[in-house]
Amino acid sequence: MGVIEFWFEFASTYSYPAAMRIEALASKAGHMVEWTPFLLGPLFHAQQGLTDSPFNAVPVKGRYMWRDLARVCAKEGLPLQTPVAFPQSGLLAARCTLALAKEARAAFVKAVYTENFARGALISEPDVIARCIESAGQDSGAVLARSGTDEIKAELKANTEEAIRRGVFGSPTFFAGDGEMFWGNDRLEDAMAWQDAPRKVMSIGGPK
Amino acid sequence: MGVIEFWFEFASTYSYPAAMRIEALASKAGHMVEWTPFLLGPLFHAQQGLTDSPFNAVPVKGRYMWRDLARVCAKEGLPLQTPVAFPQSGLLAARCTLALAKEARAAFVKAVYTENFARGALISEPDVIARCIESAGQDSGAVLARSGTDEIKAELKANTEEAIRRGVFGSPTFFAGDGEMFWGNDRLEDAMAWQDAPRKVMSIGGPK
Repeated sequence: MGVIEFWFEFASTYSYPAAMRIEALASKAGHMVEWTPFLLGPLFHAQQGLTDSPFNAVPVKGRYMWRDLARVCAKEGLPLQTPVAFPQSGLLAARCTLALAKEARAAFVKAVYTENFARGALISEPDVIARCIESAGQDSGAVLARSGTDEIKAELKANTEEAIRRGVFGSPTFFAGDGEMFWGNDRLEDAMAWQDAPRKVMSIGGPK
Repeated sequence: MGVIEFWFEFASTYSYPAAMRIEALASKAGHMVEWTPFLLGPLFHAQQGLTDSPFNAVPVKGRYMWRDLARVCAKEGLPLQTPVAFPQSGLLAARCTLALAKEARAAFVKAVYTENFARGALISEPDVIARCIESAGQDSGAVLARSGTDEIKAELKANTEEAIRRGVFGSPTFFAGDGEMFWGNDRLEDAMAWQDAPRKVMSIGGPK
């Protein structure tokens, strides 16, 4: 029993299957999930000098990613359709996540990923986000209003800065309770297993 | 029963566990492995403008990669130690792979990856490569001599050009018999399963 931190950016493609899978895996293992939104754009810019998704900046990687994502979603039985834009702005959705009570976040986050990757909706649109909030059983007017406050803006900025500080460079990223970091939907099972029983693994660190 | 193409660059970290795992998985599934060396440097340069490994160019990704590689190798029971340099030049080893009879390639390739990632040897050294050739039961003098011929040089160049043409952008890359491409040690099992029974997966292709 412990807490798995799930750090995610709403624009991220592989974060969609991760968001849809994480609750079932965590619940089976008896772990809690902490849903932590951040913005990936500032990380890509600070760490890689990028002003766009690496999947757009390097088209050969992008072409493979869309095909691979289709295979991953097919394997998981998840619907997938071409997003209206890529990457979409996840700013409003990230702020609304933080404006919601913690217990409503999972349902909201999954609804937003579904709008982005399975329904072809523009997730920067307040109307789209409003229906995600309502589908999580919350008051969309109140949450949207709260999402625009200085407090929420500062909280999202602090998450993004903490992500940089902790060595995050992509989404999804998972942290086990001892701080061990796992990157990518492919590492979700490993993160759960580590939370159950951290392994003693010697780092080699690389040359120099 | 079919052929899995295994495209690899000797400098590549995650290709080490892939090279050590692929024969057992293929043999269990009744598939053959075609060992196809290529050079990743020209691809990184042509596709991403890089003159170094992305793991050096983006240190935050490099730090994570070394830790993740340690976890992956620990899970597989594979020895790992800090390489003497990263990335190493895989040119000589790649040419020697092609200079070898096909049936000797698997043993040679695994010996080179072991020198690089488990023994801290410099794989650009002819002495190191000679002992890898001998450990595969072949005549190192003859193979080293053949590796320097125009025919072998041209064959490696052709492999690298074919990799670019087929959309390869990293190592390891696997192709199933129908041409389906899988990238990364994490996709080895998926490539085998696809070779067994290709799935009907609709591509979405991404926006625009």
